[in-house]
Amino acid sequence: MKSISKETILKMDKIEKLNLINSCTGFKSANLIATKSIEGNTNVAIFSSVTHLGSSPSLIGFIVRPTTTPRDTYKNIMETGYFTINHITVDMIADAHHTSANYESGLSEFDKTNLEEEYKEGINIPFVKGSPVQLYCKFVNEYLIKENNTIHVIASIENIFFEEVLEHKDGWLQLDKGNVVTLNGADGYFLPKLIDRFQHAQQDIPTKSFRKDKE
Amino acid sequence: MKSISKETILKMDKIEKLNLINSCTGFKSANLIATKSIEGNTNVAIFSSVTHLGSSPSLIGFIVRPTTTPRDTYKNIMETGYFTINHITVDMIADAHHTSANYESGLSEFDKTNLEEEYKEGINIPFVKGSPVQLYCKFVNEYLIKENNTIHVIASIENIFFEEVLEHKDGWLQLDKGNVVTLNGADGYFLPKLIDRFQHAQQDIPTKSFRKDKE
Repeated sequence: MKSISKETILKMDKIEKLNLINSCTGFKSANLIATKSIEGNTNVAIFSSVTHLGSSPSLIGFIVRPTTTPRDTYKNIMETGYFTINHITVDMIADAHHTSANYESGLSEFDKTNLEEEYKEGINIPFVKGSPVQLYCKFVNEYLIKENNTIHVIASIENIFFEEVLEHKDGWLQLDKGNVVTLNGADGYFLPKLIDRFQHAQQDIPTKSFRKDKE
Repeated sequence: MKSISKETILKMDKIEKLNLINSCTGFKSANLIATKSIEGNTNVAIFSSVTHLGSSPSLIGFIVRPTTTPRDTYKNIMETGYFTINHITVDMIADAHHTSANYESGLSEFDKTNLEEEYKEGINIPFVKGSPVQLYCKFVNEYLIKENNTIHVIASIENIFFEEVLEHKDGWLQLDKGNVVTLNGADGYFLPKLIDRFQHAQQDIPTKSFRKDKE
């Protein structure tokens, strides 16, 4: 195996370092976060740090860098208190990636891509049309990570919208049935396929599959 | 599309709620975190919340619930200051899942599964043998997320070990070349395959692929 030390990483070219460190933690969630400013300007930006924090209460977190792109996302969330998380499908990847371009503040990536705004009854913030899982989220708190001046935004899930074909009886949403992608690094888009799903692990009992054909 | 409100989620059965909320944020990283106690007891546990925080300095974060399983991971990190992150391959998934069983504190999951400890020169903490990407990490800080009493552990990457077949010239590690899996929910193991990799997005210029066959 190849080994790269912290000292070598520090001396690496900026892009090479970014690619290595972005790809070394594993596959990441691929989401479009859509927001609206208090003046009514919409924004949509790709994020790969949305993480489940707990189900009771239903909380998620993600990381923002307020001093760099995409700054509008954070500004809009601070103004309205709400945002939406939209899963990216295979046919959206080129447009989703384009939302990371450095457009001037206030300009909507919905106008610069084929991504379309979708509105739901009683909700003033846009969703991304065609996304098979969409979350309506409310800002709850933020934690400054002082080690690199990023912000960990904590939000509650107010409403979950999903295509019914994804749903299992026990609540599980099977994402490959919606062609949902995952990110490897800053720019590699991958399509995952189910290998197996396991039952709750128990002491000294071998792992059991949910799939009858694997029993 | 089906819609489930916060009020309905609150009233859901515990397992159904856990499955829904765990699967609704997208695909997750699948990592084995290995640690050693100050007395020398090893531990390995599966985590799906390891997230890239930044490359300069190289920082990662993950979420622990200190009051529930896997409590040894957090305790050992607090004792020694170090841990390793190991990517899970297809042939490890049953053993990786089994590390989530509720074994008594101090007992090593390395003894209860086919997962094997691997030691590297100058490092006292175990890695997981056969894992194609392994990170040696140092505890830096922790943030209590008071909304649900979880802890966001922040760590620096001290050393990256990886199989050379994964490496691209620009630093990117292509994880499907190591058969690395991703998690959907608490128990669904998926194998991702590369669809496309894009160049840095620029204003008003269509998304460009890195792949010559897609140009």
